[in-house]
Amino acid sequence: MELKHVLEAQQFDKKMLKELFTLADRMEEIVQNGESDLLRGKILASLFYVPSNRTRFSFESAMCRLGGRVLSSDRADSFSSELKAGSLEDTIITMGYYADVIVLRHHQGGSAKRASKVSRVPIINAGDGTAQHPTQALLDLYTIERELGGIDGVVIALVGDLANSRSIRSLGYFLAKYSGIKVHFVAPPPLGMREDMVQYLSKNGVIFYEHYGLEPPLADLARKVDVFYVTQIPMESFGDRLDDYETSKRQFVIDRRVLKSMKKNSIIMHPLPRQSEVAPEVDKDLRAVYFKQVHYGLCIRMALLSAILKKRT
Amino acid sequence: MELKHVLEAQQFDKKMLKELFTLADRMEEIVQNGESDLLRGKILASLFYVPSNRTRFSFESAMCRLGGRVLSSDRADSFSSELKAGSLEDTIITMGYYADVIVLRHHQGGSAKRASKVSRVPIINAGDGTAQHPTQALLDLYTIERELGGIDGVVIALVGDLANSRSIRSLGYFLAKYSGIKVHFVAPPPLGMREDMVQYLSKNGVIFYEHYGLEPPLADLARKVDVFYVTQIPMESFGDRLDDYETSKRQFVIDRRVLKSMKKNSIIMHPLPRQSEVAPEVDKDLRAVYFKQVHYGLCIRMALLSAILKKRT
Amino acid sequence: MELKHVLEAQQFDKKMLKELFTLADRMEEIVQNGESDLLRGKILASLFYVPSNRTRFSFESAMCRLGGRVLSSDRADSFSSELKAGSLEDTIITMGYYADVIVLRHHQGGSAKRASKVSRVPIINAGDGTAQHPTQALLDLYTIERELGGIDGVVIALVGDLANSRSIRSLGYFLAKYSGIKVHFVAPPPLGMREDMVQYLSKNGVIFYEHYGLEPPLADLARKVDVFYVTQIPMESFGDRLDDYETSKRQFVIDRRVLKSMKKNSIIMHPLPRQSEVAPEVDKDLRAVYFKQVHYGLCIRMALLSAILKKRT
Repeated sequence: MELKHVLEAQQFDKKMLKELFTLADRMEEIVQNGESDLLRGKILASLFYVPSNRTRFSFESAMCRLGGRVLSSDRADSFSSELKAGSLEDTIITMGYYADVIVLRHHQGGSAKRASKVSRVPIINAGDGTAQHPTQALLDLYTIERELGGIDGVVIALVGDLANSRSIRSLGYFLAKYSGIKVHFVAPPPLGMREDMVQYLSKNGVIFYEHYGLEPPLADLARKVDVFYVTQIPMESFGDRLDDYETSKRQFVIDRRVLKSMKKNSIIMHPLPRQSEVAPEVDKDLRAVYFKQVHYGLCIRMALLSAILKKRT
Repeated sequence: MELKHVLEAQQFDKKMLKELFTLADRMEEIVQNGESDLLRGKILASLFYVPSNRTRFSFESAMCRLGGRVLSSDRADSFSSELKAGSLEDTIITMGYYADVIVLRHHQGGSAKRASKVSRVPIINAGDGTAQHPTQALLDLYTIERELGGIDGVVIALVGDLANSRSIRSLGYFLAKYSGIKVHFVAPPPLGMREDMVQYLSKNGVIFYEHYGLEPPLADLARKVDVFYVTQIPMESFGDRLDDYETSKRQFVIDRRVLKSMKKNSIIMHPLPRQSEVAPEVDKDLRAVYFKQVHYGLCIRMALLSAILKKRT
Repeated sequence: MELKHVLEAQQFDKKMLKELFTLADRMEEIVQNGESDLLRGKILASLFYVPSNRTRFSFESAMCRLGGRVLSSDRADSFSSELKAGSLEDTIITMGYYADVIVLRHHQGGSAKRASKVSRVPIINAGDGTAQHPTQALLDLYTIERELGGIDGVVIALVGDLANSRSIRSLGYFLAKYSGIKVHFVAPPPLGMREDMVQYLSKNGVIFYEHYGLEPPLADLARKVDVFYVTQIPMESFGDRLDDYETSKRQFVIDRRVLKSMKKNSIIMHPLPRQSEVAPEVDKDLRAVYFKQVHYGLCIRMALLSAILKKRT
């Protein structure tokens, strides 16, 4: 697999995804057996303009498990108070002398691509604004592959903030590559899927259904879907219609009632952190795989790092 | 020694403490000879909801000296601004996939216990609110053992903020395990030892004396005590009685005058950082062991890490 | 080379600089070949009271490339909220038990010297207030040596904030050690070189010319100089004379026009980050070496670390 940067879901084709998943399977063995020396002598720089301990720790743990080193900043725009920060481009060029791969999180969509244009070393997009979060989507896809045995033909309900979740956005691009996919969009009115993604899916043969209301048909859908993919519902999106927000918070919830209707071999996913949208009572159910996602994410990021730094097991 | 988590002083019995101290002695040799490979391939995560460079660096240095790796956050509640942070429990489960041991500092008493109930990996309490700081107390106890040759029969004066110091609180639980202990509580009126600890010590056969006034009998006590354990006096505790605070700041001080009356084989301890409560002139005196405490702390934390990760020298 | 601390430019003589540059040349090979084991088992602590990702990453990368470990804080004055931070001296003594070398950045001039007086381990000054930034100046000097083949006889224009740039200040002390140096000071009126440095250079036989006006003779100088050393111009220094600031921002710029007049074997340097004082169009010119400076800086810091920790290739 030729992998120069990881910028967006669109850059991966089905063949690459398959190779990546095979590599991730092998990484799982390393996780179980302890540290490897695969990336000994390599340095990863975490450059987080927006702090996120989970994502940062996931990449840094992946690098450590492979025997590499980590330089870390969760306030990447901090400079001597006397000086004005330079451009993202200058920072990226500079960091390329210190590290062998840069993991970038930035508040602005398109930042990862901008960075990749000037960088001396590979860039991994760890989330840029509301645009994309491709490694989250890769781990989501890998989770479906591992838990359901394949992706073709999957029926998936995307629940929550479809408008602003970059994880869901990136996942959408991936799903469009597979055949026989059916997607149910389930969101309160202000948070429906954006038009460009709807058209992209439509153009790529994905069958979809839109359920935009304050009372989502979760228990009904439960009988049909293979995957519930749930995300947080942000209060800010409701403006002063706080009643609607409170209703949504109560309604868009996977709980015992939904569990009861779900198919035996279906799964519940969540990118975490969660608020109340998945009830704690669900955690013990074998179909709740959101913590397994964390584990698969570690494996996927190890696979990406080893592929991008051109080292194989 | 079976050690699953390090949560509070009460979990250690005298036999465990002895084993731990023997292990710490051996760790001292590693510190003197440079890095060991004992914890190679293991990852420690520092999860500090309240920043504390000293405690964090102590654990991280201990892990490095043993050949392990470190993931670090001193703002553990930082998440993407778009999302609300999840629960402590979810964070702990997640981090358990990235690290082999979690060092937790949190602003809320009881957090370490809560974390241990869901964690996949060992939790070490690095201070939770005003509740406990067991590794600080372990290093304090180890310092007494090393400097005085034993703990039974020790006469100790606890000086300063007895009400809120979690170090002193945790140390109290440890002292109660030994025989013949005499404790002098020395504090300005609002900062006396809390009733629950007084009763705990009393029930466990510790003899104690309370000296609560603005003029502490430090020079008098100096003739009797083996250990002065001194802590910062926080201004906030005095409300608007700033005169009393100023008086306390001047009076609760170990200085040349106190040194003069102290026994030859006694010691002065302080958990650091200090303000003016130990005068700089005291630093050169051989009985001032607060920087040695730092060294013993490194050894104790190395011992805890190697015991908890089930690796022995 | 006997190197105990790195505190200020004045501590280095020409012989030491030559040795250091030879060592840096060898470090360049390590950078090209991947990690070395030279500093295996050693720990570096970054203690940054003022955050600066670039300088911190440069030192930490240097330590990693040599096989050492890193403890890192970019908010070195963070302590438990309940406690008041202790003195710099107490912190430095404490950190000396956790690390084998301390890299210190502090807002107060003279801090590195204060630290060195009490420290158990070597101190490297990574910038203290507006006083000095000796490792930046060392890498600047090394850049001139590498790019021009020598330092004696060099004609250099220092452009921008001469009054407050500690990089330029430290570089001044170094230049005074070489013979036949000519310096052009080029600055807007409020930012001219301070009198003490002017006298120091004068006393040490450096010939200098002062160009303090709102219209700097950059294109004219371009014909004569071997080095343009450019720095940011801070708005704050202009008080309410914002017009003068705007004029300076437009005038103190290396652009295509200046490039055209420059000698073939001359160079443009900048300590970075930059604002508009070097136009992006300059980046592609072979005489623009500000990113090479980053690389040379890594080599110099590796050389300093290996010399100070008494390990040689």
